[in-house]
Amino acid sequence: MADLIERLLDGLPADAVLTDPDVTRAYAGDMAGFCPPGEPAVVVLPRTVEQVQHVMRTATATRTPVVPQGARTGLSGGANASDGCIVLSLLRMDRILEVDPVERIAVVEPGVVNAALSRAVAEHGLCYPPDPSSWEQCTIGGNIGTASGGLCCVKYGVTAEYVLGLEVVLADGRLLHTGRRTAKGVAGYDLTRLFVGSEGSLGVVVKAVLALRPRPPRTLVLAAEFPSARAAGDAVCRIMADGHTPAVLELMDRTTLRAVNDLTRMGLPETTEALLLAGFDTADPAGDLRAVALLCEAAGAVEVVPAEDAAESELLMKARRSALVALEAVKGTTMIDDVCVPRARLADMLDGVAAIAERHGLTIGVCAHAGDGNTHPTVCFDAADPEESARARLSFDEIMALGLELGGTITGEHGVGVLKKEWLAREIGPVGIELQRGVKEVFDPLGLLNPGKLF
Amino acid sequence: MADLIERLLDGLPADAVLTDPDVTRAYAGDMAGFCPPGEPAVVVLPRTVEQVQHVMRTATATRTPVVPQGARTGLSGGANASDGCIVLSLLRMDRILEVDPVERIAVVEPGVVNAALSRAVAEHGLCYPPDPSSWEQCTIGGNIGTASGGLCCVKYGVTAEYVLGLEVVLADGRLLHTGRRTAKGVAGYDLTRLFVGSEGSLGVVVKAVLALRPRPPRTLVLAAEFPSARAAGDAVCRIMADGHTPAVLELMDRTTLRAVNDLTRMGLPETTEALLLAGFDTADPAGDLRAVALLCEAAGAVEVVPAEDAAESELLMKARRSALVALEAVKGTTMIDDVCVPRARLADMLDGVAAIAERHGLTIGVCAHAGDGNTHPTVCFDAADPEESARARLSFDEIMALGLELGGTITGEHGVGVLKKEWLAREIGPVGIELQRGVKEVFDPLGLLNPGKLF
Ligand SMILES: Cc1cc2nc3c(=O)[nH]c(=O)nc-3n(C[C@H](O)[C@H](O)[C@H](O)COP(=O)(O)OP(=O)(O)OC[C@H]3O[C@@H](n4cnc5c(N)ncnc54)[C@H](O)[C@@H]3O)c2cc1C
Ligand SMILES: Cc1cc2nc3c(=O)[nH]c(=O)nc-3n(C[C@H](O)[C@H](O)[C@H](O)COP(=O)(O)OP(=O)(O)OC[C@H]3O[C@@H](n4cnc5c(N)ncnc54)[C@H](O)[C@@H]3O)c2cc1C
Repeated sequence: MADLIERLLDGLPADAVLTDPDVTRAYAGDMAGFCPPGEPAVVVLPRTVEQVQHVMRTATATRTPVVPQGARTGLSGGANASDGCIVLSLLRMDRILEVDPVERIAVVEPGVVNAALSRAVAEHGLCYPPDPSSWEQCTIGGNIGTASGGLCCVKYGVTAEYVLGLEVVLADGRLLHTGRRTAKGVAGYDLTRLFVGSEGSLGVVVKAVLALRPRPPRTLVLAAEFPSARAAGDAVCRIMADGHTPAVLELMDRTTLRAVNDLTRMGLPETTEALLLAGFDTADPAGDLRAVALLCEAAGAVEVVPAEDAAESELLMKARRSALVALEAVKGTTMIDDVCVPRARLADMLDGVAAIAERHGLTIGVCAHAGDGNTHPTVCFDAADPEESARARLSFDEIMALGLELGGTITGEHGVGVLKKEWLAREIGPVGIELQRGVKEVFDPLGLLNPGKLF
Repeated sequence: MADLIERLLDGLPADAVLTDPDVTRAYAGDMAGFCPPGEPAVVVLPRTVEQVQHVMRTATATRTPVVPQGARTGLSGGANASDGCIVLSLLRMDRILEVDPVERIAVVEPGVVNAALSRAVAEHGLCYPPDPSSWEQCTIGGNIGTASGGLCCVKYGVTAEYVLGLEVVLADGRLLHTGRRTAKGVAGYDLTRLFVGSEGSLGVVVKAVLALRPRPPRTLVLAAEFPSARAAGDAVCRIMADGHTPAVLELMDRTTLRAVNDLTRMGLPETTEALLLAGFDTADPAGDLRAVALLCEAAGAVEVVPAEDAAESELLMKARRSALVALEAVKGTTMIDDVCVPRARLADMLDGVAAIAERHGLTIGVCAHAGDGNTHPTVCFDAADPEESARARLSFDEIMALGLELGGTITGEHGVGVLKKEWLAREIGPVGIELQRGVKEVFDPLGLLNPGKLF
């Protein structure tokens, strides 16, 4: 252990190596429930690629596990320390190296915060679409690690669509370049995309070339109130089948609406079973909203209220973005599921979750990226109550089982981490697991990178 | 050999096993020059997943190499037979199994022709964007194998963006499911994307879940004539930097224009150095074209002619689509390069290619997906003239070297195949090659799938 620290200090400044347990403990875990992290041996905060290489060489020489970390906003335990590991935090590698409006790319270090990048590229009239609700905290490295989504995916896709090339420090400290800076490129296997969503288990991302888009016009949103989950799900299907491409299509159930009101005093309607927010950033958003309003009414909406302007729209989006935090306030603790189902099964998913909540006597609020079928059933419970916690955990798993039954996936955007390890095997089957393990071994034969995650 | 055929016939109908050398030779190679194919031992044309599994089990048992094949329109030798191999043609697995407008997906067998899928989904008001110019022949399996692009990539992206899930028969005959049917999903490593562009070397795609989009309005196109490659490249940069998102942004140089005129009697302008076609499928295409026309003029366009209507636009696009065939007519044979460079280096690329053509006394026409920086310098030569052929081959390689020098990639969309094997190593370096080989071994430890390609 003393030896490990000494070796690390050979290539890192003293202020980049933290060993005080009170300090290192603060880096131990991400935001996931039910997966207590281990105790790291040390936290390192490199500033350069060479320093990251030094850390990995040291880890390989001493056979010490390494847990790469961004802002630890992850919801699956993917950034959790294991006992005796090196926590490799990329937070200090936070420079935006380049923004190029002609190539429509940004080149960034992994510790750049998502919102910081968004603001920087906005100055050039550009946007970086992936927008997880945690965007003010989470880092691009973490977004790549988890293949993050967000609100605008229904129109603009997820992180995987925006990563063109990477620099990655491998487990043995070597530097790998993948992908390209050009708009297109197919030279060899797509290792870039293999890293996206690999949860720090194949290498440490130290630089990324990201695709940007022109900044769209501001989004105009409507809110539609539905008397049932089924009616709201039906509206989503009608909107998508009718050829619309909303920039957001989000859903909040009654439990979530109430929680948001309690937190924000926003006065959202609480008598409705499901509120749908549909937004357009097109040339004629008002026209698109009118068409969608008709479809919502045809599906049984009892009230459809278009926002007056972009400011009112932003307020509605703020309500949606605060959903998780609001639900957390209900009972102190939440477990946020992330099941993505075919759109046509959205209503079945919502009804099924309601049944699970009732069976276990629990409060489960659902918000969803409804346009993608990506639901976040959020189990609210009192972590100090072991019996309620056990029920919460049970319902969390039942929700995943329900998602698989409906033809969905256990994770639309939050990743597998520790929390869903057993479930990954259920979803992808033994052949898939065997090949994934094989891929892991190619990149990390000693199994040092983020051990115990994914499989 | 007789044993191999007998074993194959154990699980395949007689009409699915071709052994007559005159027949099998017709399946030996794709459209690439300078890489003569080997002689296959047998061509199999299975109709079911089980039959493909039988082929792969037989190949594994007898240690026979297998070359998966679509329509053999590939331009890199990726579908070329090796001596004594089994050619596994997927052409008879050509059913569209499902088109679902709510989920916006199609589920298809690999032998479905790209244009057939486009027509089928158009009936539902949907489109499948990737549109290689070979779309009337090439198959979805081949598109996935090569990670195909096309004209509309500048707005809609490439094949990788549209493959959500796959069924793949592995080298040993086992069936692997990857990905999902849902809009999002991040459960485990992205093996789906790993197969896209893997050129038949990791497994045989037998089913694909593809993402669809609502059919956009018809594209309105303008043609802008430039006095130099530099001016045309400048226009491309201005258009992209100004925040436009054209549905097509294509370029043809003077050599190409002349060739197209010779073939089609279209009367395209031959006095211009470079013709740019910019098209929009937006709500107000005429307005977008007006803005782009101004940018073209600012960059030095001598003439800007907007198409009167969609029909005239389609005619211009037809001219562009016939470019390769037209260039082939110039001297009988062509070698089509596929170098993608940063947009800002487009003019350097074009000027550099002109210099290479002059140095070697060759005709090299350039057409390009200019909005992506993806150029197709096409070397025209007489294959019966060994000396000219040698110069053609040399210039082909010099073009790739130039592309790398300009910060580009050796292949934007056609793949590596046999033709660019040595170049792959130059582009991605020894660490990349080592990892790619490692990945290959995980999926195909005996090295039976499409040996001699990529590496
Ligand atoms: C309030 C709230 C709202 C959220 N909303 C969304 C949402 O809308 N959509 C969504 O997708 N997620 C959401 N999340 C989850 C989380 O924010 C995302 O997963 C985010 O991408 C994590 O980024 P991070 O920087 O916090 O990464 P971390 O949590 O620190 O790490 C995430 C994973 O990436 C790996 N990693 C981090 N950096 C690197 C690197 N440089 N190289 C290699 N591996 C690395 C880690 O090992 C870990 O496995 C939300 C979370 C919260 C708390
Ligand atoms: C006139 C012309 C224009 C072209 N224009 C374009 C263009 O605009 N953009 C572009 O990207 N390309 C273009 N191409 C190249 C070519 O059409 C594409 O690469 C196409 O995707 C190949 O499809 P195919 O069915 O012919 O596949 P093939 O040539 O038969 O095979 C291509 C590769 O895929 C593999 N493969 C095929 N099927 C499977 C399967 N089921 N499972 C696993 N592997 C498989 C093969 O082994 C091979 O490596 C053009 C070609 C021509 C002749």
